Amino acid sequence: MTAAQEGQLVLLIGKDRKSFIVRLQHGVRLQTHRGILEHSDLIGRPMGSRVRSHLGHQYYLLAPSWDDLLRAIRRASQIVYPKDIGYILMKMSIRPGSVVLDAGTGSGALAAAFASAVMPTGWVISYEIREDMLALARRNLAHLGLAEYVTLKHRDIGDGFEETEVDALCLDVPAPWYYLEQAQRALRGGGFFGSILPTANQVIELLRALERSPFAFLEVEEVILRGYKVVSARFRPMDRMVAHTGYLIFARALAAEGSDEEE
Amino acid sequence: MTAAQEGQLVLLIGKDRKSFIVRLQHGVRLQTHRGILEHSDLIGRPMGSRVRSHLGHQYYLLAPSWDDLLRAIRRASQIVYPKDIGYILMKMSIRPGSVVLDAGTGSGALAAAFASAVMPTGWVISYEIREDMLALARRNLAHLGLAEYVTLKHRDIGDGFEETEVDALCLDVPAPWYYLEQAQRALRGGGFFGSILPTANQVIELLRALERSPFAFLEVEEVILRGYKVVSARFRPMDRMVAHTGYLIFARALAAEGSDEEE
Amino acid sequence: MTAAQEGQLVLLIGKDRKSFIVRLQHGVRLQTHRGILEHSDLIGRPMGSRVRSHLGHQYYLLAPSWDDLLRAIRRASQIVYPKDIGYILMKMSIRPGSVVLDAGTGSGALAAAFASAVMPTGWVISYEIREDMLALARRNLAHLGLAEYVTLKHRDIGDGFEETEVDALCLDVPAPWYYLEQAQRALRGGGFFGSILPTANQVIELLRALERSPFAFLEVEEVILRGYKVVSARFRPMDRMVAHTGYLIFARALAAEGSDEEE
Amino acid sequence: MTAAQEGQLVLLIGKDRKSFIVRLQHGVRLQTHRGILEHSDLIGRPMGSRVRSHLGHQYYLLAPSWDDLLRAIRRASQIVYPKDIGYILMKMSIRPGSVVLDAGTGSGALAAAFASAVMPTGWVISYEIREDMLALARRNLAHLGLAEYVTLKHRDIGDGFEETEVDALCLDVPAPWYYLEQAQRALRGGGFFGSILPTANQVIELLRALERSPFAFLEVEEVILRGYKVVSARFRPMDRMVAHTGYLIFARALAAEGSDEEE
Repeated sequence: MTAAQEGQLVLLIGKDRKSFIVRLQHGVRLQTHRGILEHSDLIGRPMGSRVRSHLGHQYYLLAPSWDDLLRAIRRASQIVYPKDIGYILMKMSIRPGSVVLDAGTGSGALAAAFASAVMPTGWVISYEIREDMLALARRNLAHLGLAEYVTLKHRDIGDGFEETEVDALCLDVPAPWYYLEQAQRALRGGGFFGSILPTANQVIELLRALERSPFAFLEVEEVILRGYKVVSARFRPMDRMVAHTGYLIFARALAAEGSDEEE
Repeated sequence: MTAAQEGQLVLLIGKDRKSFIVRLQHGVRLQTHRGILEHSDLIGRPMGSRVRSHLGHQYYLLAPSWDDLLRAIRRASQIVYPKDIGYILMKMSIRPGSVVLDAGTGSGALAAAFASAVMPTGWVISYEIREDMLALARRNLAHLGLAEYVTLKHRDIGDGFEETEVDALCLDVPAPWYYLEQAQRALRGGGFFGSILPTANQVIELLRALERSPFAFLEVEEVILRGYKVVSARFRPMDRMVAHTGYLIFARALAAEGSDEEE
Repeated sequence: MTAAQEGQLVLLIGKDRKSFIVRLQHGVRLQTHRGILEHSDLIGRPMGSRVRSHLGHQYYLLAPSWDDLLRAIRRASQIVYPKDIGYILMKMSIRPGSVVLDAGTGSGALAAAFASAVMPTGWVISYEIREDMLALARRNLAHLGLAEYVTLKHRDIGDGFEETEVDALCLDVPAPWYYLEQAQRALRGGGFFGSILPTANQVIELLRALERSPFAFLEVEEVILRGYKVVSARFRPMDRMVAHTGYLIFARALAAEGSDEEE
Repeated sequence: MTAAQEGQLVLLIGKDRKSFIVRLQHGVRLQTHRGILEHSDLIGRPMGSRVRSHLGHQYYLLAPSWDDLLRAIRRASQIVYPKDIGYILMKMSIRPGSVVLDAGTGSGALAAAFASAVMPTGWVISYEIREDMLALARRNLAHLGLAEYVTLKHRDIGDGFEETEVDALCLDVPAPWYYLEQAQRALRGGGFFGSILPTANQVIELLRALERSPFAFLEVEEVILRGYKVVSARFRPMDRMVAHTGYLIFARALAAEGSDEEE
C-alpha cells in the first residue's frame, strides 16, 4: 500500500470532476467549493482512496498524470497539449539523460515536460525574452518539483544560444525561421530540431527557410485526438473535439562539413 | 563535435530513404544494396555527417529516433506506433524511475519504449505466454541496448502478476477484460491502467468489465496522425494516411477499501 | 438582376451573423433584435444586396443555402448535418425523379433534403409513428415549400411499407435491424439502402442483421467536416469542431431469386 | 420487379469486386477477365439479380451509384470525390432547376454531377481551355447520358463568362484568384461561389483575393471520409484512408450596389 506523504504532489478529484493539485504539507488546508480538506488528514492515507471534505463530499486522492499537471499549470500563453508533447518526446528522442534546449519558455509547460522526461541525469535549458513569463515559468516549475532540472535564461535567442552539442532543440516561438542558424550552432551533429506553429502561413515560411538550411529529413505532422464516450452500451465518439492545436515540424541538423562536396 | 563511437546504435540513411540501424563494431561491415560500409570507417566520424559506401553512394550517419527504432524492430505481431506510445507515456505518467508492468510482450516494442522512458532508475516487467515471442523480444531489447531494464516473464497472466505496487500496467492482449482483478492487485493505489485494442467490439467488452470493477476515471481515445508534404510552395496533407491503429483505454486503480461505504 | 419576389424564401443575415429565414409576403414584418424589416420593403430588392432595419442596422438579403435551411428547421430530434445528407444523396443516387422512402420522419429534415433533390418529378414517402413529430415535420416542409413532394404516413414500419419498387430507402430509427425484411420488400432489385446511427453498438447490431439478409455491398463510413479560419494571413483549422454526428451504413438490395442456386 | 432495359446504364460487379459500367445494347458483348456477358442476355433480367458469364462466373446486375460512376469515368486529371461533390451540392444549393457554371471542365466529372442534380429543368455550362479535355469530357457525359444538360465551351475564362445571373459557379482551376471579377459578373446577386484547391498556399492566395472582392460569407472546409471494416464481430476503421483531396472554399456574391454607402 502506497500512502500519501508530506511534500508529495497529489490530485484531489471530486464526484463533480472538479480537481485540485496540491503539494501536501502539514498545517495547510485545501479550500474547495464543497468543503475543506486538511493536508494533515490526507498525509498517510492510501493513494487511490476516497477522502471526504468537512462537509462530507467525497474526493479521490491520486497521483496526478501529465494530463492533469498540464491542465493545472498556470499559464499566460497557449497551452501545449499532452497529445503533442508525447509525440514530440518520441520524434525528438527526448529521454533520460538528454540535454534539451527550448525557446520561448512561456509558462514553462514544455520545459516541464522535457525536464520530467530527461531527469535525473539530463538537463533542460529554456530561453525567454519576457521577464514576466520567466517568473511565471519559475513558479510553475517549482510547483511541479522540476526546477532543479531546468535552467531558465532571460536572453534574446537572436543573439544565439550559449550551449552547443545539445541533443534536441524545440522552438515554440511565432517566427522560428529567423533562428535556424542559431539552432544549428547549438545542436550536435544529427541533433533533433522541432517546432510548433498554429498557422499554415507560418509552416510555409519555416519550410522555406529549412529548405535553404543545413537541416534535413523535414517532416510536418498534426496529432489529432479523438475522445469517446465511455458508456459500454453506447460507445461512440464525443460530440465535439479540439480540432487544432498546432502543426509539428521536425528536422535533423546535419554536421557542418568543410570540404565535403555535394553528391 | 560528437563522433560516432564503437558500441553506439546508429542510423544510416541513403538518398533513396532506405535506412539501416546497426551497432558499431570494429571489423563488421554493413552490406547495402548500394555498396558496403565498413564500421571502422564510421567510428570516429561526426554524427550528422555524410559517409559513402565503397560504390560512392552517400549515407547520412545519425542517431536513430524512436520512430526509426520502432520501424526497425523485428516483429511477429502488430506494430505499436510512436503516436500511440508517446501519448500512453503522457497519460500513464511513465517517466524516469517508474515501475511498469506490460503484457503481452509480443516483439517487445512497448516494453522497449517503456524501458527507454523509465531508465536508469526505473524498471519494466513484461509478461508473455509464447516462448517464441519472448525469444524475439529478448533479441530486440538486446539490439536496442535496453535488456538490463526489462525483466521478461514466461507466465500466464491469468495466474496473476508476481509484482505489487507498480506505478503503471498496460495490457496489450486481445481480451484484457479477463485480467482486471490481476491488474488491480498488481497496481499501487491510484496506479495507471492502460490498454490498446483494435476493434470497437473489444472496447465495448472492456468498458463493460471496467464499469463493474474498482477502476475509475475511464477514458477512451484515438490518436490520429496526419502527415503533410514538406514542400513550402505546395503545403498540403499527404494523399493517404494510416486511418487506425487502435483505441487507447485508460483508467485509474482505486485503493481496495474494506469498510468504506459508497457515497 | 434577380429581385426578391413575394412568396420567395429568403435569408436575412446581419453583421453579427444572426440570421432569419422568412417567406416574403406583403404586409408581414420581421422583428429582429436590431430593428424591424417590412417584407414589402424587401420585395423587389436585388438578391445579394444590403437592406436596413428601421434602426439602421444592415442585413444581407440572400437565398438560403441548404446549410442555412437545415440550421433553421424547427426540430424536436437530432439534427442531420449537410455533410451527411450530401454524402447520402451521392451514395444512394438520389436525384431528380427518384422515389425515396424514409423513416422515421422526425422533424422532416431528411425528407426535405430528399424532396429537394428528387423534385419536381420524383417523390418522397416518409413514415413516422409519433403524431407530434408528423405535425412538426408538416409545418417544416410547408415552410420550405416542399410539402407537395412528400407524403407523410402515420404508421408503424414494423407493419411494412405500403410501397414497392422504390429506388432508395433510408432508416433513421434507433433499431433499424428490426426492419430489414420490410425494407427489402419495399426496394426495387438493386435498390439503395441507407441508415444513420450514432453508436458503434448499433452499427454492430445492424451489421449482424445485414450479414444474414439479402442485402449486399455493405459499407460503413463517417463524414468528418473540418472548418478553417478564413483569414488569409493566418490560415488554420478552427480550434474546435463537431467530432461525431453518426455512422452512415449503406447496402444494396438484391433481387429475391426463387430457384437461383448459390455459386 | 424492375427489369434491365436496352439503353440503360448498368453496373456489373463480380465476386472479386471488379466492376464494369455499360449501356445495354442488343448485339453488344462485355468481355471480362472472367468470361463474356452478352447484353441481350442481360436485357430483361431483374435488376439486383445474379447473372453469369459464359465461363460460369457470377456478376451482380445493378444500377450504378454516383460513387460507381465517378470511379468509372475516364479521366486525364484529378478525380473529384463523391464526399466533396455531395457537400458542394448542399453548400451551393445546386438542385433541380439550378443554372450552374463550372470551369475547367477537365474530364467532366464535376459537370456531370451538377447535371445529374439540376436535370431535367436546370442547365450546366462548363468552360475548358484545352481541346483534348473537352473531347474527353464530351465522351464521358455522353457515356453517362447527361450530354443534353451540359453546354461545353472552349474558351478562356480570363475573357469572362458569357452567362449572367447564374445560380452557382464553381472554379476548379489552379489559380481561381485571377477570375473573381468574371465570376462576380456571371453570378446573380447572392449567387453561390465555390472552389476546390489542393494546397494551403492556393487557399491563402484565394482568401487574399476574396477579402478584397465583393464576395462575402467566406468559408473553407475539408470533408474527410473514414471508412470502416464491415464485419460485425470486429467493427473498426479501415487501416488506411484517403487523407486529403482538397480544400473547399465557399462564398456568396454580393449585388453590385452603386450608391449604397458602407455601414
